[in-house]
Amino acid sequence: MNFASDNVYGIHPKILAAIEAANQGTTPSYGYDDYSKRAEDKLSEVFEKEVRAFLVTTGTAANGLALSALTPSYGAVFTHNEAHSAIDECNSPEMFTGGAKIIGLEGVEGKLTPPIIEKVLKGFLRGEHDPKPAALSITNSTELGRVYKPDEIKALSTVAKSRKMKFHTDGARFANAVAALGVKPADITWKAGIDVMSFGGTKNGGMLLEAVVFFDTALAEDFLYRRMRGGQLISKSRFLGTQMLAYLEGGLWLDNARIANGLAQRLAKGLLQSNRIRIPLPVEANEIFAVMPLALHDKLLAAGAHFHQWGLDILGRDGIAEDEVFCRFVLSFATPEADVDRFLSLVKQG
Amino acid sequence: MNFASDNVYGIHPKILAAIEAANQGTTPSYGYDDYSKRAEDKLSEVFEKEVRAFLVTTGTAANGLALSALTPSYGAVFTHNEAHSAIDECNSPEMFTGGAKIIGLEGVEGKLTPPIIEKVLKGFLRGEHDPKPAALSITNSTELGRVYKPDEIKALSTVAKSRKMKFHTDGARFANAVAALGVKPADITWKAGIDVMSFGGTKNGGMLLEAVVFFDTALAEDFLYRRMRGGQLISKSRFLGTQMLAYLEGGLWLDNARIANGLAQRLAKGLLQSNRIRIPLPVEANEIFAVMPLALHDKLLAAGAHFHQWGLDILGRDGIAEDEVFCRFVLSFATPEADVDRFLSLVKQG
Amino acid sequence: MNFASDNVYGIHPKILAAIEAANQGTTPSYGYDDYSKRAEDKLSEVFEKEVRAFLVTTGTAANGLALSALTPSYGAVFTHNEAHSAIDECNSPEMFTGGAKIIGLEGVEGKLTPPIIEKVLKGFLRGEHDPKPAALSITNSTELGRVYKPDEIKALSTVAKSRKMKFHTDGARFANAVAALGVKPADITWKAGIDVMSFGGTKNGGMLLEAVVFFDTALAEDFLYRRMRGGQLISKSRFLGTQMLAYLEGGLWLDNARIANGLAQRLAKGLLQSNRIRIPLPVEANEIFAVMPLALHDKLLAAGAHFHQWGLDILGRDGIAEDEVFCRFVLSFATPEADVDRFLSLVKQG
Amino acid sequence: MNFASDNVYGIHPKILAAIEAANQGTTPSYGYDDYSKRAEDKLSEVFEKEVRAFLVTTGTAANGLALSALTPSYGAVFTHNEAHSAIDECNSPEMFTGGAKIIGLEGVEGKLTPPIIEKVLKGFLRGEHDPKPAALSITNSTELGRVYKPDEIKALSTVAKSRKMKFHTDGARFANAVAALGVKPADITWKAGIDVMSFGGTKNGGMLLEAVVFFDTALAEDFLYRRMRGGQLISKSRFLGTQMLAYLEGGLWLDNARIANGLAQRLAKGLLQSNRIRIPLPVEANEIFAVMPLALHDKLLAAGAHFHQWGLDILGRDGIAEDEVFCRFVLSFATPEADVDRFLSLVKQG
Repeated sequence: MNFASDNVYGIHPKILAAIEAANQGTTPSYGYDDYSKRAEDKLSEVFEKEVRAFLVTTGTAANGLALSALTPSYGAVFTHNEAHSAIDECNSPEMFTGGAKIIGLEGVEGKLTPPIIEKVLKGFLRGEHDPKPAALSITNSTELGRVYKPDEIKALSTVAKSRKMKFHTDGARFANAVAALGVKPADITWKAGIDVMSFGGTKNGGMLLEAVVFFDTALAEDFLYRRMRGGQLISKSRFLGTQMLAYLEGGLWLDNARIANGLAQRLAKGLLQSNRIRIPLPVEANEIFAVMPLALHDKLLAAGAHFHQWGLDILGRDGIAEDEVFCRFVLSFATPEADVDRFLSLVKQG
Repeated sequence: MNFASDNVYGIHPKILAAIEAANQGTTPSYGYDDYSKRAEDKLSEVFEKEVRAFLVTTGTAANGLALSALTPSYGAVFTHNEAHSAIDECNSPEMFTGGAKIIGLEGVEGKLTPPIIEKVLKGFLRGEHDPKPAALSITNSTELGRVYKPDEIKALSTVAKSRKMKFHTDGARFANAVAALGVKPADITWKAGIDVMSFGGTKNGGMLLEAVVFFDTALAEDFLYRRMRGGQLISKSRFLGTQMLAYLEGGLWLDNARIANGLAQRLAKGLLQSNRIRIPLPVEANEIFAVMPLALHDKLLAAGAHFHQWGLDILGRDGIAEDEVFCRFVLSFATPEADVDRFLSLVKQG
Repeated sequence: MNFASDNVYGIHPKILAAIEAANQGTTPSYGYDDYSKRAEDKLSEVFEKEVRAFLVTTGTAANGLALSALTPSYGAVFTHNEAHSAIDECNSPEMFTGGAKIIGLEGVEGKLTPPIIEKVLKGFLRGEHDPKPAALSITNSTELGRVYKPDEIKALSTVAKSRKMKFHTDGARFANAVAALGVKPADITWKAGIDVMSFGGTKNGGMLLEAVVFFDTALAEDFLYRRMRGGQLISKSRFLGTQMLAYLEGGLWLDNARIANGLAQRLAKGLLQSNRIRIPLPVEANEIFAVMPLALHDKLLAAGAHFHQWGLDILGRDGIAEDEVFCRFVLSFATPEADVDRFLSLVKQG
Repeated sequence: MNFASDNVYGIHPKILAAIEAANQGTTPSYGYDDYSKRAEDKLSEVFEKEVRAFLVTTGTAANGLALSALTPSYGAVFTHNEAHSAIDECNSPEMFTGGAKIIGLEGVEGKLTPPIIEKVLKGFLRGEHDPKPAALSITNSTELGRVYKPDEIKALSTVAKSRKMKFHTDGARFANAVAALGVKPADITWKAGIDVMSFGGTKNGGMLLEAVVFFDTALAEDFLYRRMRGGQLISKSRFLGTQMLAYLEGGLWLDNARIANGLAQRLAKGLLQSNRIRIPLPVEANEIFAVMPLALHDKLLAAGAHFHQWGLDILGRDGIAEDEVFCRFVLSFATPEADVDRFLSLVKQG
């Protein structure tokens, strides 16, 4: 019963098979292999637009490198205060961008809204004493398991563009958002104003499966230099390309996401049947945040379940009692359904 | 017939099998898995000393992160002018170190010597107008296929330590050096004064198989932060750990290196039988640098051989005629012996 | 009637005279002149402790360079959300520190308190996914005109030291704090736990008169390199040294501050006599923040007064009506008393 | 008898008077004062072109900030190996540019030539493994006292532009070059292909008198942010503006340079009358490099003369005997002619 994260699970068999299949003969290295090229083409197909795509090894690097193409060192990037780029990457965006300021904003129910952005931008009217507003970044699905809809993204884009800011989306769990919304990938990216994205597949079946995808391909100029400088150009690049191809082939990525999202609904539904557990935010993707009694929490851990306590700031000061804890559950395509059911029966026993 | 690089070949079957074997169940992510821990222990065993080892995804990142632990932003790192850190990593060491100066020095027959370091240090006596001499870095085996012997390294260490500089070795082809010298890994690392190394296995059978290994473990303090900030902490870290375990298990790493080195000797010997080809530097590891007539070069490529021309600076201004080219050949554990022989017969036909 | 800032006034005559007096003959350059050395000695005398002091040209550089000695690139610096280092220096601390995260915290009535620091530190328990808590920085007197007392600083120091964090004070208006409290310089610096400070004199009579002063002199090791790298080592350094000597000589710095503080009290007292003006924060140094009707504000500007509107965040969402504005007034040693009185009579006329 | 540097002398009386004159009343701070604006206008007049000019406090900062507008972090800047940006600024260009690589090239008789640049660029054909060639920088007059003529600069510009590189000139001693050549300032800047310059006046009579001047004004976009972030925006900016105005007014800057250059000719001529002294490079501006017997050197120092020994690399390995030293002499507008004559008589006495 491991709900600690989707990355505690391994590689999807089809992706592992693709790694094995690519292990034949020689190929050019450092990104000049055919797999990498085909992966870029496949992403263009998936997004219904000619994109530039660059494979990298971690989501942290994808975010930092993507932002480095959007902001100068004297710029500001606005993001949610629970976004990975704001609080989970140990100054990595600062490193890749050469010291840009990453400003984490408090959202409304786990998401940014146009008024939030407009309000903060009012403080950026003094010229060079402030950093220059350069980019907006949202995570979809968010770190709190919420999903931005096409219209919400368009509205944020309008605000960003009104100040000539670029727009980035962290898609570490992008497949979960697409699956949850039942939209096309284009609908919540370039058609809604996104300029560049971090396209993540590691959490959803890959081994190391991350790409920076440019919809505004002019921004990709010199990105080869950025990736190399970032220590992210791997020599045996075919093994990243082949993962991406297998991930996208036949819609595996969305199939996996649908399974994970479905398990999250199953778990959430079961948890809510217990009157001792509250779920303050809507469950839309593959993550659940729940408040439960400390005693129950301890009992579940003792029974072998794995899940993390979460910082309290999401709920503010008064959302939780002294004898309660706030917890996160993440579901993977590989989470056994039986584990969900066993966990729910433990909850029921209380 | 691909001699372009050792990284045009794939993953060694035993390492691929280890990836498959690790793809079971759940493990903690972000470096807290058991494979990563065991990989560190195994490296301690191999080096006969308790080391701290941190798995990363590229040699470029390993070098940059290792140097970041050795030099402040206002420091200077001395290295060979053909070293990857000097000319092959697109300002990546500058990024990781926060802007330290990487000073590439001309070597003697492809290696640095104590007088070279002493000479340059004489220019660093003016205080803060110069950067602070902080570290010395050598590659072993070198980018020119040479090998530093234990005594040579000790002599360099003495110079470095006399100015309180730290000592790094780039071991992108470390196994080839150990195999060539017939020494123990400790003999050309910590016993010779090396403080930290980039331990590379990708070129020698891994998929992404790189580690920063600290012999002076005090320098590893806070390295977890550095790796994370560097975008180099992968979530499914078990798949790096398992590669390292398989690579070291039963001496696979040295077996592979011995094969590659042996093929290099076979190829070099054959080439020298042609009086139209000169090999200006001793062939000690798995790389050969050769001067050949342009006409022969073209004919070999036309016959399907792959190998790179190299910059002329190694030989200086007068080492090569107008109708000659300077070429590099790299041998891998996976290079078919038949390819070597076929290539040599092409050379013989001229 | 210029209350826009204390830096709209010029150089104190005694300091200008010192510049003239130093303009004789030749001196060593780049900080090796006698004036710079004597300035350091004089600061040691003023602080009753042997300090290391480094003259620089701007307060922004002083802050950035000071923090660069306290935090690694993967560190976090905690400061007030109105502090210059947080919001007024266009990513300059990020540049000097190599990308450390500067975290601006909401204070209580314009100051940080131990519970605020303790609360935020609770979020820094996850290891390398967060930056490493490295330093605490307070401004004294604060950007909101408040003054930290010795015991308040000691209490903050206790929290900082409990997490092995260093403690910096931005003293852009340090003289105003010392004068306001009637304490000795040591009482609100090293005796209260401050490790390093930005000692500013530009706003209080200098031309360019800023220094980084180390109380923990071990932290000053290599600071010469930092200053040079920071572009802050001026060649004709005698002209910084002589300013500092004149500024400290005979207590000019405190005399100036007492005048400015006194004028602030005079202005504040007068403003409060108008029932149309509110002053939400205690006036302790040489700055006043006041809420006034927009109509009055416009009338005062039309009459030739200069002062700035201020961001609303200090007062939160409900501190101010639609037809009101929030304004800042800064008093200088050079502000004519007659200007204060004339301004107050304009206010009275309403 | 102080020939150690031109910066061991003080402020020219007219510039000091201008500082005093500006010390009246209040002015806007942080570069929004009228003096700064007029200084920019005056520079446009001097250069016969509308420029953008930004006052800063040191030549090091001017160079670093100027280069930061010309190169990305993944770029390379080519310069002479005796240039300040290459060897005299302790990684400051690396800081301001975010880690660009500054490549110091060996010149011919103290200057760069088109073939030197063309040769090194041949090594930059491999794509992203190298940094991207971004800018060329020359110092005029050079650190070795040479002067680039208009045609020489144009020829270098042609090479730079052929690779889309920007062209910077470090004008720390620009007045000396203009005076030596008898050209107009435009002739050796924008008319010869220079895009941006560091315009230095500190060595030639200023207190802190440095500006970044953009001839390609499109490159100045956002430079206000760069200067602020660089810690180089001073609050009482009028005192920089007034210096620049006085420096340029009535051609003071060129008058001073002519005096210094003339004194250098006088000293060089005298030195050459001694058959014990050699001057290997032409004396064109206000610096002289000379080889003299160690015994003479010691005697001159003992007699109270100040001048520096210089690194030997300029002359290569065989330019100097064991009992000789290589020395630099710098002349200032303020160097007493009597000091030159007294020094020459000491030399004559041997």
